[in-house]
Amino acid sequence: MFFEGAEKKLEIIVSKEHQPLYQQPDSFWEELVQQCEATILSSIRNEKQLAFLLSESSLFVWDDRLLMLTCGQTKLIKSAQFFIDKFGADHIDCLFFQRKNEYRSHLQPTDFIQDAKLLDGLMEGEALRLGKMHSHHTQLFHTTKAYEPIDEDRTCELLMYDMAPEVIDFLTREDLNREEIREFFQFEKILPGFQLDDFVFKPYGYSLNGIRGEDYFTVHITPQETSPYVSFETNLKICEKSQVLLHQILEILRPFSFDVMTFNCSTEFDFGQTYMKTIHVKDSLAIGYDVHFRYYNKKMDTPEKVYRYKELI
Amino acid sequence: MFFEGAEKKLEIIVSKEHQPLYQQPDSFWEELVQQCEATILSSIRNEKQLAFLLSESSLFVWDDRLLMLTCGQTKLIKSAQFFIDKFGADHIDCLFFQRKNEYRSHLQPTDFIQDAKLLDGLMEGEALRLGKMHSHHTQLFHTTKAYEPIDEDRTCELLMYDMAPEVIDFLTREDLNREEIREFFQFEKILPGFQLDDFVFKPYGYSLNGIRGEDYFTVHITPQETSPYVSFETNLKICEKSQVLLHQILEILRPFSFDVMTFNCSTEFDFGQTYMKTIHVKDSLAIGYDVHFRYYNKKMDTPEKVYRYKELI
Repeated sequence: MFFEGAEKKLEIIVSKEHQPLYQQPDSFWEELVQQCEATILSSIRNEKQLAFLLSESSLFVWDDRLLMLTCGQTKLIKSAQFFIDKFGADHIDCLFFQRKNEYRSHLQPTDFIQDAKLLDGLMEGEALRLGKMHSHHTQLFHTTKAYEPIDEDRTCELLMYDMAPEVIDFLTREDLNREEIREFFQFEKILPGFQLDDFVFKPYGYSLNGIRGEDYFTVHITPQETSPYVSFETNLKICEKSQVLLHQILEILRPFSFDVMTFNCSTEFDFGQTYMKTIHVKDSLAIGYDVHFRYYNKKMDTPEKVYRYKELI
Repeated sequence: MFFEGAEKKLEIIVSKEHQPLYQQPDSFWEELVQQCEATILSSIRNEKQLAFLLSESSLFVWDDRLLMLTCGQTKLIKSAQFFIDKFGADHIDCLFFQRKNEYRSHLQPTDFIQDAKLLDGLMEGEALRLGKMHSHHTQLFHTTKAYEPIDEDRTCELLMYDMAPEVIDFLTREDLNREEIREFFQFEKILPGFQLDDFVFKPYGYSLNGIRGEDYFTVHITPQETSPYVSFETNLKICEKSQVLLHQILEILRPFSFDVMTFNCSTEFDFGQTYMKTIHVKDSLAIGYDVHFRYYNKKMDTPEKVYRYKELI
């Protein structure tokens, strides 16, 4: 059974009169999440933010913005539409809607162009592709009304594909519990001081939200043998920490390939001799964001065997 | 407008009593091609084979077998089903059905698993994936009844993505004629002695069949800016010619990345320092074919700009 791990991503920044956004009632967040056919599993909060763990990924809410990530066949565009309808386009300062290239796009309810056209009808914007059509790429719709990002507004996504076989063996153990996964990732060591909320799916799969002041990180694992995938996203100053955190995560998971996507993080990453950068897109959006999309690959020296589909038998 | 260049491929080997297969009446080939919603544009023949140029790619017919390639949204599975119904599964010695990973699979009428299940209901077989789900891969259904390939039965496919900008500029010139394209590829020089049949599509796109005795080669170009693609396939002894031909074609088109898929061709290819092999699958099928699927990438040192979708405006 194939599961499209790659998350769709929605970020919305509201105008002053709707801040603090996290003070919206719980019923509002429940309704927002229902729109995309996901459900809220649990939540944590501190004085700066609110973080929901969803049946398909995560929702974070701050003073001025929200970030929503959903995977599988969820209809994140419906949540975007619901939010715009409720608040009104004039009360939204900036909106980003992002979709990674999908390997089974026929299982998705809509495609990116349909989603972007719908959004463009509600709030003027433009649609971009970062990366090559015939390789990894991500597609991004963003509003074009004048906007200037705050200094702290940076994000880094690390999307990892086909982890080392031992890692996949571990992550697909059906009796795995959250303590074992936290220990495996050494979250306490590499990301100290975060309040954590996590969930282990059956037969496997794992989601985690971590918050500390305004900082967040989130991890989602879909270890299925046909398409093993782990995503990590954060607003930490990764650039200034000399990529130490990304290196640590890559050493733990040893993926065959990975994407690094950043907003307003200008450091050049260096992943040494093991990985080669086969895609790099770098651009400045008129609304004040520098975006980078990179795809790194290992050289394959030892040929693999074919994968035999079991579904036909 | 996106066009899925990657071809679906069907190869069928018939039993002795239906040979020579190329003696089937023209009406049969017309009907076979109609099934997948393509049409025959022209044909050439010699004493060994018959080659049709199609509105979406090619059909070759020999004494014992046929090879059919169709791109875009064609329903090649319907042609396979039609052929099996007409001849009967007992009169087919071997069947291969292959689909490359598609980047807009939601535009396709069926997916590979559906096609493989349909075929498996008509003739027992197995379905394979060669390559990683999260990178380039091809999917292959083949029958499992006992079979032993003839010595000459080898093929090599070279599938090239994102050719050099000057090459794309040339291939998307709307007034381009066949002589200019033949000259550009230097077909007469690199593949001498072939009888050629080619067609220039409007506004652009090009297909060519070449035959010489039992040898064939075929070239299909979809140079569209969102997904530039050129495929080359042949049964020539490329392995033994020290890859000269593949190198020549790569030098002409200078793609950003390419796949090489071979059946019964054991030579190790070497594409030097320019390209790195990021995927290599190597296996032996029980029905006597050694298959290799390889994907090569360039290192990207100079970042690209984003691609802006024009469709929304």
